[in-house]
Amino acid sequence: MLTIRRLDIEDARILIAGARAKAEEIGVPMCIAITDESGQLLAFERMDGGKITSTIIAQDKAYTAAGAKRTTESYGSASQPGSPAYGINSAIGGRLMVVAGGLPVIIDGDVVGAIGLSSGTPAQDTQCAQAGIDHFLATRG
Amino acid sequence: MLTIRRLDIEDARILIAGARAKAEEIGVPMCIAITDESGQLLAFERMDGGKITSTIIAQDKAYTAAGAKRTTESYGSASQPGSPAYGINSAIGGRLMVVAGGLPVIIDGDVVGAIGLSSGTPAQDTQCAQAGIDHFLATRG
Amino acid sequence: MLTIRRLDIEDARILIAGARAKAEEIGVPMCIAITDESGQLLAFERMDGGKITSTIIAQDKAYTAAGAKRTTESYGSASQPGSPAYGINSAIGGRLMVVAGGLPVIIDGDVVGAIGLSSGTPAQDTQCAQAGIDHFLATRG
Amino acid sequence: MLTIRRLDIEDARILIAGARAKAEEIGVPMCIAITDESGQLLAFERMDGGKITSTIIAQDKAYTAAGAKRTTESYGSASQPGSPAYGINSAIGGRLMVVAGGLPVIIDGDVVGAIGLSSGTPAQDTQCAQAGIDHFLATRG
Repeated sequence: MLTIRRLDIEDARILIAGARAKAEEIGVPMCIAITDESGQLLAFERMDGGKITSTIIAQDKAYTAAGAKRTTESYGSASQPGSPAYGINSAIGGRLMVVAGGLPVIIDGDVVGAIGLSSGTPAQDTQCAQAGIDHFLATRG
Repeated sequence: MLTIRRLDIEDARILIAGARAKAEEIGVPMCIAITDESGQLLAFERMDGGKITSTIIAQDKAYTAAGAKRTTESYGSASQPGSPAYGINSAIGGRLMVVAGGLPVIIDGDVVGAIGLSSGTPAQDTQCAQAGIDHFLATRG
Repeated sequence: MLTIRRLDIEDARILIAGARAKAEEIGVPMCIAITDESGQLLAFERMDGGKITSTIIAQDKAYTAAGAKRTTESYGSASQPGSPAYGINSAIGGRLMVVAGGLPVIIDGDVVGAIGLSSGTPAQDTQCAQAGIDHFLATRG
Repeated sequence: MLTIRRLDIEDARILIAGARAKAEEIGVPMCIAITDESGQLLAFERMDGGKITSTIIAQDKAYTAAGAKRTTESYGSASQPGSPAYGINSAIGGRLMVVAGGLPVIIDGDVVGAIGLSSGTPAQDTQCAQAGIDHFLATRG
């Protein structure tokens, strides 16, 4: 039997709050998705003005980051033409996201969940996702 | 009427055992999928720590290798931009995998099934898939 | 943060072994799927002669039992015409199974995974799934 | 290693010819699908006037009959409200057909493929599918 640590819903709210604060600061309304460590949705918010397409993309970024235990951005470089993971972007019915904005949430070396952002540029999405994680880690003291 | 040779469940277990031994040796927990020659699932194991996203990808690598009678790695080069099979990675709802790690199992020139690995680098996935085949062929004497 | 207990791969093998032994006893080759508590595939075996359609159905029975924390059979009665869950069988792209044969694996009140069987009658599928669980619990002493 | 018998393309043409002759006789243009024993498409013809929706349904009837080794009609009765397989019609993304018109092709007790018809009433579909099998068996002497 394995013992797994997983974000709870209060953790998920804190992650969203951190990401949303940064999104408001840079003036980009975002879709923000939090999944557990198995990539299953825990919480989601579409800020007023967030993109419709991003409701799916944010979820899939978080799913990918949790399931593969790595940032979606890292898949972006690994899947360039000529690179080893080329073509993986269409795997799992296209759910495997290789665009930046999905980050695993890691505690003591364990992936306990993930956060995925979408609606801005991939750099903005990543910036806000990281802000969510930073805020979460700060509240843990 | 055609006569087809196909892996049985005992063959599938041997293939998994060989792949798992190599995965343990290199220290990478893997998802390991075995399909028959028609790409239908015969056996699967997710080693403790194997990636969630790889549960699907390993199966689809084996499906592709069996169905297309070639390694998924060979599709990787054939599907580069400008190459004839460019874009084929999103075929069949994204099930056609062009990332290395799926190998057909060939006996006397016939594809009798396939093995697909995922969770490591594509090179590690291929290494362990090949170890499964080597172990299987060795047990056949 | 939550702490979750989950079947490991050795547990999954024991569950399969128990189900397979019963399937052999009653002479019905089965597809046997084990998922973790999140419904993600851990292990699978198609016994020689198991049905092709059952490779998917067994997995989806386990997914449903884990994800909904109840037997698929219980959904069968709850989804009859006029009943509250009528029509739920086509939910999640048809993955939500209401045919008997999927059982959650419960330890100390927690769902830690699930087992799904398919190829026999729903009663046979359930019988063998239960045998897998009985064998697993017996090995835990 | 298993040895499997499977329809070849010439067998598939004979099955279609038999079904088509009956369809012409009763004046119903049909979609006719032949799969191998794993449910993978071998041959298909849409007679002039056959229904568009039936191009998919005929294939899925044959897939179901091959994969589950039984007629789709038998699933129709087994999946009525209150019956054990109630709700199975939406399994496998809705591919599992419980409407009559899909028959396994059986030689010496082995399922070697299947035939699926659609465009008429389920009774007409079954009649023509059976005519295909009768014609096929007659040509084998």
